[in-house]
Amino acid sequence: MNAEIIAIGSELLTPWRQDTNSLYITEKLNLLGVSVAFKTIVGDRQKHLVEAIRNAVRRTDILVIMGGLGPTEDDLTRESVAEALKIQLKRNPDLIAELYTRFAARRQTITRNNEKQADTLEGAIVLENARGTAPGQMLDTVYGEHRKLIFLLPGPPSELKPMFDEQCMPLLRETLPVRHIATRVLKAAMIGESAADARIAPIYQQFKDVETTILAHLGDIQLNLICGKSIPEAAQARVDELAGRIEEELEELVYSSQGETLEQIVLYYLEMRGATLSVAESCTGGLIAQRLTSISGSSRSFMGGAVVYSNQLKTQFAGVPEDLIERHGAVSREVAVALAEGIRAQCGTTHGVGVTGIAGPGGGSEEKPVGLVYFAVSDAEGTEVLEKRFNGDRNRIRQYASQQALDLVRRRLM
Amino acid sequence: MNAEIIAIGSELLTPWRQDTNSLYITEKLNLLGVSVAFKTIVGDRQKHLVEAIRNAVRRTDILVIMGGLGPTEDDLTRESVAEALKIQLKRNPDLIAELYTRFAARRQTITRNNEKQADTLEGAIVLENARGTAPGQMLDTVYGEHRKLIFLLPGPPSELKPMFDEQCMPLLRETLPVRHIATRVLKAAMIGESAADARIAPIYQQFKDVETTILAHLGDIQLNLICGKSIPEAAQARVDELAGRIEEELEELVYSSQGETLEQIVLYYLEMRGATLSVAESCTGGLIAQRLTSISGSSRSFMGGAVVYSNQLKTQFAGVPEDLIERHGAVSREVAVALAEGIRAQCGTTHGVGVTGIAGPGGGSEEKPVGLVYFAVSDAEGTEVLEKRFNGDRNRIRQYASQQALDLVRRRLM
Repeated sequence: MNAEIIAIGSELLTPWRQDTNSLYITEKLNLLGVSVAFKTIVGDRQKHLVEAIRNAVRRTDILVIMGGLGPTEDDLTRESVAEALKIQLKRNPDLIAELYTRFAARRQTITRNNEKQADTLEGAIVLENARGTAPGQMLDTVYGEHRKLIFLLPGPPSELKPMFDEQCMPLLRETLPVRHIATRVLKAAMIGESAADARIAPIYQQFKDVETTILAHLGDIQLNLICGKSIPEAAQARVDELAGRIEEELEELVYSSQGETLEQIVLYYLEMRGATLSVAESCTGGLIAQRLTSISGSSRSFMGGAVVYSNQLKTQFAGVPEDLIERHGAVSREVAVALAEGIRAQCGTTHGVGVTGIAGPGGGSEEKPVGLVYFAVSDAEGTEVLEKRFNGDRNRIRQYASQQALDLVRRRLM
Repeated sequence: MNAEIIAIGSELLTPWRQDTNSLYITEKLNLLGVSVAFKTIVGDRQKHLVEAIRNAVRRTDILVIMGGLGPTEDDLTRESVAEALKIQLKRNPDLIAELYTRFAARRQTITRNNEKQADTLEGAIVLENARGTAPGQMLDTVYGEHRKLIFLLPGPPSELKPMFDEQCMPLLRETLPVRHIATRVLKAAMIGESAADARIAPIYQQFKDVETTILAHLGDIQLNLICGKSIPEAAQARVDELAGRIEEELEELVYSSQGETLEQIVLYYLEMRGATLSVAESCTGGLIAQRLTSISGSSRSFMGGAVVYSNQLKTQFAGVPEDLIERHGAVSREVAVALAEGIRAQCGTTHGVGVTGIAGPGGGSEEKPVGLVYFAVSDAEGTEVLEKRFNGDRNRIRQYASQQALDLVRRRLM
């Protein structure tokens, strides 16, 4: 079974706005064994809408239409589905009554245009919308001798998501052949997409019944494993087996086997070991601290640290000797070590991290080019230092550096 | 003239990946007076591709196809355009020679499948790709008695964007009727979307020839003004006039009239005044420092600071007296002031910022609920303090708080 998602709204055709609902709907459909074959984004023009709906219903089994259900003249989804499929649209007296009750409860007067939200396609099931005025609809119909399921959903994510979860998913489960989907998400740090693929492709290619997707983003690799079977245990066993084989191959590169983020894993390890962490960041400028503190509860093991952008602050906050900076330069192995050891001492934490590098675009030299970053992690047993060269622009270098720093701490705690 | 953008790639139909190239292309097309009527996202299946291309060429004048130009079996764009439009595909000997030269220079052996990247649609102009192996193509053709411009572009943004700017835009400018588009981007901080709209709608509604779009994101409002005329000065005069009227209405809420970010503006003001800044962040956990240091050259006026997540570090790095924290609590007006004054003194900067609050989801109380944040900015003339209550989740509260802190510094420097 395949699906098409149509996102409606002229604002989705500007340079500034993008449909994101479809990602959510895709995830849910995939869990039912339905894949998305097309996505179409179309503006608020009935002619274009009718065209998009006709194409979709010809080529896919399930059609999810999002947006255009409100009360304004621009809301044309109901009319367009009716025209495209030659189905009658009828004003539903129960929905009219509900609308009036809702407006009365809010002490608002209702304008005539609101009544069109009660128009229902003949044969459609009404999907209640507790969070907005526009109800959704589901139509189970036949088009060109094939059965088609058509959903009309409101555009706002806060209305669409609960409606899809609470009403569409049960309807789809009843309708579609039973198929149990098991998923696993593995994550690995600081390995390239092609290097990871070269190592694991020979493994996942043996699991033809598991769909494996590799996503790479700034030093982070995510492996999505998905398997559908008629027996739930069988699906789970297959993804678990493949996950185990991949973990064996990639060993300590894998930091998460249940989809957690790298910062979550670092905080988890710290807490498990009763350890605490502080950071002294130069080129990452607060990015490492920001990632760690984005996690709720991080204050239990992350104490804070310093953004030592200037040389003076490297001395001030992390006790890096001035002459060390003078001798080796601010971007050096020695200063990274001094930052890690110094911040650890100043903050009284079990672990300290120091990062210094050149994020660019300026500030590079032949000897110390843009992208050169030194990392150090220090604990009671000593200090470990690492030199890396990253490619790309300022943002990319900083992101990679923060990823590398967190991964260094993770490995130290392993 | 209208356009359709087709993004190709099965990964764009998963829950994890999304086409973003189309936003860039849309911006550029809009500058030529071309609006995007449809966007279609389709996987790597020739049947689906042919279907999408046939629909697009029927309903729009300009067709931008992105992705599917590489050497693998999944790269089917060339073949699909040829099939959809019944155009011959010919292996281009010049491109073959170029491919071999390129691989030889890298000391790599070329595999046979690479050669398909030299297949060119009959009548197409080849678009060079200095950043990758797959060249693009542009076809100026007639379909159903209408002229159609069809672009085949590589998927990676680093290849697509320069190819579009350097080669497609000049070709489009030559081809399309002359129309001059003037744009302005105004930005305002810490005002809601509906509050901003209520104040400026009566103004922009008088400018029917200027398209005004309001975008709101975490305490940031962006107003996009766009106007197309046959005379460039006329278009520019209209957007400038409207921009001036909006600035008059919103006054000091507007921080940027040429699209700069808030962090850029803060750094610009600091530099203009010969001032320097340090920050002591508690609940924002490095986010303010990270935003400032994301800007190249920020080291000229941003010195750094401390992430004082624990109470001990508030004392250690910003000299906040222990008994002050005990008396008023870490989240208090008094501690915000002490953080700002302390970090300023410790770092020897002209300006210091202190932020302390409750980002949640835990840690709130009736007296000090989640979302309560205190801000202080200190300089030679004194210290200013601000109390705010933000709604939403941890991420939203932190983002709003970082925005508010930067805006407080901007206003202090004005």
